[in-house]
Amino acid sequence: MSIKHNYLENTDLNEAKQKYFGHLKDSGFCSGYEMIPSCSANKRILKNAVYAKICSPHYNACAMDGAAVKASATYSASETNPVLLSPEDYTVVDTGDPLPDGCDAVIMVEDLIDKNDGCFEIISSVRPWQNVRQVGEDICMGDMIAPSGTQLTPSLCGALLAGGVTEVEVIKKPLAGVIPTGDEIVMPTDSPSKGEIIEFNSTVFRGMLEDIGAEVKVYPIVKDKKELISAAVRKAVDESDIVLVSAGSSAGRDDYTSEIISSLGTVCVHGLAIKPGKPAILGEISSKPVIGLPGYPVSAIVVIEEIVKDVVSLYCGTTPPEKETVKGILSKRIVSSLKYGEFVRVQLGRIGDEISVSPLPRGAGIISSFTKADGILEVERNSEGIEAGAQVEVRLLKPLKEIENTLIVTGSHDPVIDEIADMLKKADAPFRICSSHVGSMGAIHAVKNGLAHIGGIHLLDTETGEYNKSYVEKYFPDGSAIIKKGIGRIQGLMVKKGNPLKIKDFSDIKRIRYVNRQRGAGTRILCDYLLQKYEIDPEGIDGYRNEEFTHTAVAALVAAGNADAGLGIYSAAKIYDLDFIPLCTEKYEFLVSKKYENDPMVNEFFNILSGDKMKNRLEEMGGYTIYE
Amino acid sequence: MSIKHNYLENTDLNEAKQKYFGHLKDSGFCSGYEMIPSCSANKRILKNAVYAKICSPHYNACAMDGAAVKASATYSASETNPVLLSPEDYTVVDTGDPLPDGCDAVIMVEDLIDKNDGCFEIISSVRPWQNVRQVGEDICMGDMIAPSGTQLTPSLCGALLAGGVTEVEVIKKPLAGVIPTGDEIVMPTDSPSKGEIIEFNSTVFRGMLEDIGAEVKVYPIVKDKKELISAAVRKAVDESDIVLVSAGSSAGRDDYTSEIISSLGTVCVHGLAIKPGKPAILGEISSKPVIGLPGYPVSAIVVIEEIVKDVVSLYCGTTPPEKETVKGILSKRIVSSLKYGEFVRVQLGRIGDEISVSPLPRGAGIISSFTKADGILEVERNSEGIEAGAQVEVRLLKPLKEIENTLIVTGSHDPVIDEIADMLKKADAPFRICSSHVGSMGAIHAVKNGLAHIGGIHLLDTETGEYNKSYVEKYFPDGSAIIKKGIGRIQGLMVKKGNPLKIKDFSDIKRIRYVNRQRGAGTRILCDYLLQKYEIDPEGIDGYRNEEFTHTAVAALVAAGNADAGLGIYSAAKIYDLDFIPLCTEKYEFLVSKKYENDPMVNEFFNILSGDKMKNRLEEMGGYTIYE
Repeated sequence: MSIKHNYLENTDLNEAKQKYFGHLKDSGFCSGYEMIPSCSANKRILKNAVYAKICSPHYNACAMDGAAVKASATYSASETNPVLLSPEDYTVVDTGDPLPDGCDAVIMVEDLIDKNDGCFEIISSVRPWQNVRQVGEDICMGDMIAPSGTQLTPSLCGALLAGGVTEVEVIKKPLAGVIPTGDEIVMPTDSPSKGEIIEFNSTVFRGMLEDIGAEVKVYPIVKDKKELISAAVRKAVDESDIVLVSAGSSAGRDDYTSEIISSLGTVCVHGLAIKPGKPAILGEISSKPVIGLPGYPVSAIVVIEEIVKDVVSLYCGTTPPEKETVKGILSKRIVSSLKYGEFVRVQLGRIGDEISVSPLPRGAGIISSFTKADGILEVERNSEGIEAGAQVEVRLLKPLKEIENTLIVTGSHDPVIDEIADMLKKADAPFRICSSHVGSMGAIHAVKNGLAHIGGIHLLDTETGEYNKSYVEKYFPDGSAIIKKGIGRIQGLMVKKGNPLKIKDFSDIKRIRYVNRQRGAGTRILCDYLLQKYEIDPEGIDGYRNEEFTHTAVAALVAAGNADAGLGIYSAAKIYDLDFIPLCTEKYEFLVSKKYENDPMVNEFFNILSGDKMKNRLEEMGGYTIYE
Repeated sequence: MSIKHNYLENTDLNEAKQKYFGHLKDSGFCSGYEMIPSCSANKRILKNAVYAKICSPHYNACAMDGAAVKASATYSASETNPVLLSPEDYTVVDTGDPLPDGCDAVIMVEDLIDKNDGCFEIISSVRPWQNVRQVGEDICMGDMIAPSGTQLTPSLCGALLAGGVTEVEVIKKPLAGVIPTGDEIVMPTDSPSKGEIIEFNSTVFRGMLEDIGAEVKVYPIVKDKKELISAAVRKAVDESDIVLVSAGSSAGRDDYTSEIISSLGTVCVHGLAIKPGKPAILGEISSKPVIGLPGYPVSAIVVIEEIVKDVVSLYCGTTPPEKETVKGILSKRIVSSLKYGEFVRVQLGRIGDEISVSPLPRGAGIISSFTKADGILEVERNSEGIEAGAQVEVRLLKPLKEIENTLIVTGSHDPVIDEIADMLKKADAPFRICSSHVGSMGAIHAVKNGLAHIGGIHLLDTETGEYNKSYVEKYFPDGSAIIKKGIGRIQGLMVKKGNPLKIKDFSDIKRIRYVNRQRGAGTRILCDYLLQKYEIDPEGIDGYRNEEFTHTAVAALVAAGNADAGLGIYSAAKIYDLDFIPLCTEKYEFLVSKKYENDPMVNEFFNILSGDKMKNRLEEMGGYTIYE
């Protein structure tokens, strides 16, 4: 059996875009237009300048409730010399009424003294056209209401109607046809079989493209057969303005997209010097852009963000919106390849005067790195990376105001932090929690360096058997950070349901496949302490180097059979229906920088932690105790 | 005949909101919920925290095209000691395939040396789980994907599906029922009869509310009959979550809204201490907000912006988005009433280091003041106004980036400026033009004080008969501003078609009703020059004090019969099909601050002005000449 293998190009992103957009323009790619009612034209883009067809108001309209008069009849009125208006001198009018013939002003109702005999007295005069909205006061016939290319707003739609423009010619919304491909791809389900991959990319694309004004049609999933994909592409090119083929964009055995586009049109670029997003295809068939997107969601999102959105702008004749950025301090070193420009997802938060920038996991398959991301840090090509502490510019994915109001909680993983975040949301707290799993030692580092308000730690002093205290004393000898509050939680070995390997205590890990936690994690320190206690050589443990970042990740691998046991907390074992061999109860505590001890966000965090709701929730989750 | 007259309250905006929102909460106003598919949940708001139901990936998936192996079989491989993999040692896999049983790693296709006999050679080892996406790598079952109250994004929708969450419970979109009322109100048309007012407010409301995630149902127009409006309100309360009654919110003869709400529920506030927006009603019927909106569009927009949007947030349980602001320098004095807080629409633009803030016309009927507005300047209650030159904080209606890239052209009104703006848009210029009509003397003031890049002037030196030159020499003796380019245009008297009053020359304005231009306008200076020449006393002119700001506004009033004649340019007369009595050809020229002479935006402006397209357009408009 042989393996086909082609290499991709490694085209610079900007070069690729220039080449591709040039090709699209030359091929005749352009927008369509349609006439639509002005009353449903909000957000649409005008083809041409629009001029008012009528004036607004289009007649002289009374601007007040009161009496319409000839202004000259009131000129002599004063407090000492009131003027009496007989019924023939005035007409009672409401706001919006046409000014009666022969009148050129309106006296406000408040200024009319009712003589109860059909006459009114006035003690001040009105000038001509007072309290009258003269023809064209707002909009004059012939005036340009909006120039071409304007994106209409609610008030512009109102102005169009006021100016008698009931229909407008606008740029058609580009229709993006999305073709999901792949033998293993299935429609969303909560019970996929082994080897089935849930097709969620098209949902992400739909949202991203609808958000910028495109329409999206998702075609049925196509199997990895060249003829089938080719037929689907031809149909989509016929029906849509932009075609996106999801997956199959690389150069593997089942990657047909490039070949298909070549045979029906032109492949401009195949392979970009970016990460994620490398295996992208920029093609054109019948003057329409046909883009091959990588199958990994994060790669595809980057290609949509960096290229497809600009294709939509090209269609609409609009300038792509400027990307807002913010400057911040990188919390952790980023290593990058010279070959690629990298788009690193980051979390952001303000600590004191600085915005801290924390990189998220970089795997192309980690959609959760986008859901948690506040911004994108671009590491340029030809750079080997960026050092911790460097000032960097980050492109925002969320409003800066939201980021400013962030409580940063970092450190050891415990689901309790997510639960507190949820309870804060429910309580309408005017800030959010941004949390990351960097382990207990990571928490100490972050609090020490002003990168987090709160750090979650459970650090066993292997000499005293005590938790946390000695570490805090060692790293914060000046008392600049304190333990504020914590919970007790049961740590133990998570093993398969029914404990088939008959694991009794920690010493049994010598004879089974283990899954470990990352260095710096409190649970890792516990593991190493226990290894020492039982005099076990780590090198002899199968899986000692297999490191995970959370309790649930360890539980998931035990449940899947990737490992036979791992250390973790009871609540994680419970979710995965694993057996649990309790080893100890530890103190999971929250370290707070003295500086932020009385910060309202920090206070609110601990209020929630001490509340009854949290107590109930912890009981529900299991394996926790609350102590004062 | 008698006139009903009630007074409105004058409740402080914040007090009114506090009282009203408190009442709504107490009355039981709350959001509804619905289950929807996660694939169409973008932008929706989660009711509860959502946890992953399955892991993603939910099986061990190959992360590369290549060969799946048992890692331990590769440990001895090196350049000097290659390992040969026989067909029984490996399985060919594609990215996404399930890892075959017995394997725990994948060798990338690039690292396989094909021996063409079914065997591969490798010269480096793989470690366990290398190139494998282990179960839960992205999302672990039981992990919280998003806390309650989260507004879903495209990537969160993807993460929900990846985590096996195919449906989510979200907050129902609030349905806002809009009831347009009024005897004079008609559906949008380009030929309304006298006294008919085009109903465009509901279109503005629809756009504003849909933009923040509400759904809008506009009911048919209801005549000013109490029973009819009452029936419509009851129906809307039954069918919608929020009811808006458009017009009839004041205390005039035909204003029934307050009475109707009182009879069916509660009126919390009637009359706000704001301008525009004073005659608003904040009411509640059957636990639903029922709000009476003023009929004037600008007043209604302010009430929607300040109150209705927050009612939508209250329903959705979201924090109203923070309003972005910018600091700038006020270009013109604003006088305000102590009684009201005022919301002044302003135009913004950057000139050098400063953002200039120019107030727009303040009439409640001027929808175009909103279409042109870049921001809202709030003048507090108990303030008499703000002086020119003061630093003010403005709430942005447009992105700051757009405002930063603005060429500010001010001065005398000529439609040519709008035409240039249009041509710049068509040419994809990376900036916009912001223009205002402040007259020629206003242009000199603005350029002198750094409030505009370019000023349009046509100033007749009544001594020499020359245009502009002597003014520029007088006001810029240091040469800090220059005339860059201009056009010739014919000024004359615009009179009714057929010239029924037999107006022959300017001296005839003694015997007719005149409409004038504002002080400082070049056309006003021409008028005053001609009055002097013909030795006519301005005080004797009927309408001398009737001032308009644009040529089309003057033409509109002559066409409507509000005046018999006015001075203006030929193109305006042409639009209104008026007769035109030419008086002179004047130089309309563009004054540029020396500082901005070579600014790219300024250059582009003059390129367009000198282009062939502009020449053709000027011919089409009529009455213009181009000179070098």
